[in-house]
Amino acid sequence: MKSITHGGDIYSYENKFDKIIDFSSNINPLGIPESVKSALHNAVEKSICYPDPLCRKLNFKLSEHYNLPGEYFAIGNGAADIIFKIAQVIKPKNALLLAPTFSEYSLSLKTVNCNIQYYKLTEESDFQIQKDYLNFLTPETDIVYICNPNNPTGNLTEKDFLIEIIRKCRENKIFAVLDECFNEFVENSENYSLIREIQNFDNLIILNAFTKMYAIPGVRLGYCISSNTELISKIDEWGQAWSVSIFAQEAGLAALSENNFVNDTVQYISAQRKYLKEELIKLGFTVYNSKANYIFFKNNRDIDIENKLKEQGILIRSCKNYPTLNDKFFRIAVKSRDDNIFLIDMLKNILK
Amino acid sequence: MKSITHGGDIYSYENKFDKIIDFSSNINPLGIPESVKSALHNAVEKSICYPDPLCRKLNFKLSEHYNLPGEYFAIGNGAADIIFKIAQVIKPKNALLLAPTFSEYSLSLKTVNCNIQYYKLTEESDFQIQKDYLNFLTPETDIVYICNPNNPTGNLTEKDFLIEIIRKCRENKIFAVLDECFNEFVENSENYSLIREIQNFDNLIILNAFTKMYAIPGVRLGYCISSNTELISKIDEWGQAWSVSIFAQEAGLAALSENNFVNDTVQYISAQRKYLKEELIKLGFTVYNSKANYIFFKNNRDIDIENKLKEQGILIRSCKNYPTLNDKFFRIAVKSRDDNIFLIDMLKNILK
Repeated sequence: MKSITHGGDIYSYENKFDKIIDFSSNINPLGIPESVKSALHNAVEKSICYPDPLCRKLNFKLSEHYNLPGEYFAIGNGAADIIFKIAQVIKPKNALLLAPTFSEYSLSLKTVNCNIQYYKLTEESDFQIQKDYLNFLTPETDIVYICNPNNPTGNLTEKDFLIEIIRKCRENKIFAVLDECFNEFVENSENYSLIREIQNFDNLIILNAFTKMYAIPGVRLGYCISSNTELISKIDEWGQAWSVSIFAQEAGLAALSENNFVNDTVQYISAQRKYLKEELIKLGFTVYNSKANYIFFKNNRDIDIENKLKEQGILIRSCKNYPTLNDKFFRIAVKSRDDNIFLIDMLKNILK
Repeated sequence: MKSITHGGDIYSYENKFDKIIDFSSNINPLGIPESVKSALHNAVEKSICYPDPLCRKLNFKLSEHYNLPGEYFAIGNGAADIIFKIAQVIKPKNALLLAPTFSEYSLSLKTVNCNIQYYKLTEESDFQIQKDYLNFLTPETDIVYICNPNNPTGNLTEKDFLIEIIRKCRENKIFAVLDECFNEFVENSENYSLIREIQNFDNLIILNAFTKMYAIPGVRLGYCISSNTELISKIDEWGQAWSVSIFAQEAGLAALSENNFVNDTVQYISAQRKYLKEELIKLGFTVYNSKANYIFFKNNRDIDIENKLKEQGILIRSCKNYPTLNDKFFRIAVKSRDDNIFLIDMLKNILK
């Protein structure tokens, strides 16, 4: 049987509480845009047909949205689906991963028996990638994964340093998978994205998803972007003909037609992240420098905050199953103002 | 870029016709049950959460429905998703496929560089599997795929012969994938299914889907059943955590709560299949013995019925891209009475 390794496991607790407040998955607190909900309702009647295997309309819309050729995009059943397809297509022998980072990279690499080396992000350097990362990029490396902002830390790597990394990867014939699934939650996100560099590096693959920003993790829709069109074709062709459902394709089309939703979200998240960080610091936690829609912190006391919150129907993400982390580290989503206040109040009670 | 290899490609033609009548994909003409539509509408609000990676409720419901242990089921993003997972998990070196049959088997086997041998179903034997099939089952074979009823022919293999095949497979340590995705459309389908034999053969994997019977190919939901729980675990664990969307899980739960829908469908299909077969024979086509919700026939004349029907907005499935078949062979879905009459009328016009 599969085991639960991620946040968002509301299903283990739904019969135990009237209401669960889930801080363990990082979903936009503004919720699903009305236009996306409408599109999903309209998709019900459409689902009597097979989905378009080529996702033609959504591909065209993505191409317009980014002003990049349609051949640069491969669309999948969530970004996690794309992660597994990348592993299958590239079949790397040696990979370099950050530790900690999103666990689906390593899971996908294990399906192709890839050796995994970890670049350890340390507490001492505030979990920030350091210059010595470049020394790990050798001709033996086949692929690297950088999540920016990183999950679970929320740390950003500066664009200039990222370009230096991607360039050294290219010199060493290393594919660089840059996961920007949380990029749009960052203030001035374009200053951190490498999307405008995509034409300059044929070893660069950028991952993105509709899941978090448009609050539709249950729909499953993600994509990757690369100017290496041969690689994109292979990723796109790997697997079944109909991996992207009608619901996903329709939701994606509606999401990309939204205008102010992303900006409104960034403003809302910024204010709430500031509130949560300040309160967590007041409560004595070590709070790291997340720029994303989640906060990474350390509990220095010997109090089991995870289970005490769970008793109140509040789920937070223990980071104990991330390599190099332990049960002192937690990740919480930045949620609605009311939910955030409730969490802080509950934490105050627990720590009293 | 991916190419279109299956039926159901309404998206290439939707701007050319006010109405497309799609006989090229085999979907229940009774449409999506109201209960399933309601479940899909209700899923919109639920899709703000990640789906349950373990599909616990749907697994429990399947287990109840079949009166088999929950550990016997792996659920996927359509049966096609399961087909690819089976290939990844078993990594067979030598496979035996029917020709013609559903093409996703061979596509999945190519991802693991499997050698494929074809057992040719011939016109002379009405595309029926013959006793000599058993001679192809040798210790060198790792896996066989039998689609029952077969796609595109609609032919059934008798249960006793199937059991003989599975038994010889077991003797030779061969996995047998039995695709029963169209089984429920057959009259007295339980006389042809091996579901009640699942406990007796740990080399048997039965495939099934919600796609065709519940008319929800756009949703993506399929599963496999085996008493080999170690194998089921591996199939279930392969790939991303969230391959089955909330829409799929909710639709599956509603579908399995339907009572008379399958029986009503079988009756409707039987009458309409009879009508279509008789009319096609009258029109001079060679019509094969399909027991499914589609009909396989041969056009002996030099008239391009596919394109002439397409000019009228009617899509039928040319079978020219199936190994051993050519552009004389076609598959059409058994659709609603009105659609079927319209198709026959159009064919009469074309052949005039």
